[in-house]
Amino acid sequence: MKFRRSERLVDMTYYLMNHPRELVSLTHFSGLYQAAKSSISEDLVIIKETFENRGIGTLQTVSGAAGGVKYIPKIKQEEAEEFIHHLCELIADPERLLPGGYLYMTDLLGDSQILNEVGKLLASAVSDLNIDVVMTVATKGIPIAQTVAHQLNVPFITVRRDNKVTEGSTVSINYVSGSSKRIQMMSLSKRSLKEGSRVLIVDDFMKAGGTINGMVDLLKEFNATVAGIGVLVESEYQEERLVNEYISLAKLANVDMKEKKITVTKGNYFSGQVDFL
Amino acid sequence: MKFRRSERLVDMTYYLMNHPRELVSLTHFSGLYQAAKSSISEDLVIIKETFENRGIGTLQTVSGAAGGVKYIPKIKQEEAEEFIHHLCELIADPERLLPGGYLYMTDLLGDSQILNEVGKLLASAVSDLNIDVVMTVATKGIPIAQTVAHQLNVPFITVRRDNKVTEGSTVSINYVSGSSKRIQMMSLSKRSLKEGSRVLIVDDFMKAGGTINGMVDLLKEFNATVAGIGVLVESEYQEERLVNEYISLAKLANVDMKEKKITVTKGNYFSGQVDFL
Repeated sequence: MKFRRSERLVDMTYYLMNHPRELVSLTHFSGLYQAAKSSISEDLVIIKETFENRGIGTLQTVSGAAGGVKYIPKIKQEEAEEFIHHLCELIADPERLLPGGYLYMTDLLGDSQILNEVGKLLASAVSDLNIDVVMTVATKGIPIAQTVAHQLNVPFITVRRDNKVTEGSTVSINYVSGSSKRIQMMSLSKRSLKEGSRVLIVDDFMKAGGTINGMVDLLKEFNATVAGIGVLVESEYQEERLVNEYISLAKLANVDMKEKKITVTKGNYFSGQVDFL
Repeated sequence: MKFRRSERLVDMTYYLMNHPRELVSLTHFSGLYQAAKSSISEDLVIIKETFENRGIGTLQTVSGAAGGVKYIPKIKQEEAEEFIHHLCELIADPERLLPGGYLYMTDLLGDSQILNEVGKLLASAVSDLNIDVVMTVATKGIPIAQTVAHQLNVPFITVRRDNKVTEGSTVSINYVSGSSKRIQMMSLSKRSLKEGSRVLIVDDFMKAGGTINGMVDLLKEFNATVAGIGVLVESEYQEERLVNEYISLAKLANVDMKEKKITVTKGNYFSGQVDFL
């Protein structure tokens, strides 16, 4: 079956979007569409230019016999700013206030469109860090990890606070929750992470950083490298944080229970240091 | 800025893929690309034909003043069969055997490409059921719920086995785990689900169906409707199941610990009844 250029452009865009960061050979496309490699190359130039003009990302060309093309998703500065602004407004809704000054955020962590944007933003920020795997802690971190991993086209793994038989052998550590100073346990399935992996740690919320610091410690047991840290929301914290290099999309500056006012500002996404030193 | 047809096709494909099942007006596209609505209509015909030829899905046209176009993702029969075959092979790997006859499946539930396909398959099966929300139970069901919800472009909600302050008020029920006959608790945040919602229940694994039956009961407390049930893997079960209408992608037929042999067959995806009566 022969394909016209217009059809090839639609189908190639679909394919590339479903396989971000994966090297696709020109042979793959030319076989699929029964088209000359030179035509495929021209198609790819159009896609690359459109992606770049529209701020969707770019196509990287890898030359040589094992060469091909890779779609690297990116997000436009404006789109990122607009989304973060929107997110801050959503979080500042006083309806979210719960007893004890906690915030209800479960709806945001189950909203496909929001998760999609969160994934694009965080993946975009760590685009050059050669992440092998995304790691988080159950339960609320999972949607964040999954969406970032989807954008990076890498696996994600989940640290648990309990021990389940279905995880097989696990490595467990004790850690001190930063703000409540309680000792807690976290464990990770032994076979879920290879030695030497470059890991991006993500979570939904960070205050003192105790949980994230626990994950950093846990990674040492696996001889894995913390390549970066990203959180959806960080909370203002007066004392010294256990974690210093991270990026956040939003920052919870203040919760006034009496006045029912939540103050949220943008996180350090545009200024923070994502790579962990 | 003017766009050529080739650029519009790439960008529209990108946009539609990011907004499945969402009504997009022709005005949106014609404004965005400074193009006549008639040109946009022609573009959409090309995209629709390509999507249908390639088994990617279809575009539904809604006419009238509030009209526009909706991308409905679908999966080709062959692609679905191929994926299910691949999934069965992966699950049958004897390395997955854990003490007690349990299987290690954590890697599959953290694999972006596999989750993507699982989402497409399950979403495709419930495409006509007008699902408002996808529901699952923590922890391992979450990745399934998230990927299906992403494909359906609806929210997902997570039932928990504990009570967390960050969930606000919850509704809890006791349920009997079908195979172990133990009484357990599950709870769902009150504000996470509107009355009258049409809910798709998903989970990673089903044996007797106790957990899923618990979710069905929990939905009654919310005056919500079970619109369908889908699981990744069902296990052979001799006694009567608590749940009869569901679809599964794979079926665990037998686990022979002594011979280290796992027998997996395809689930009832192509023959099962997804809508709950």
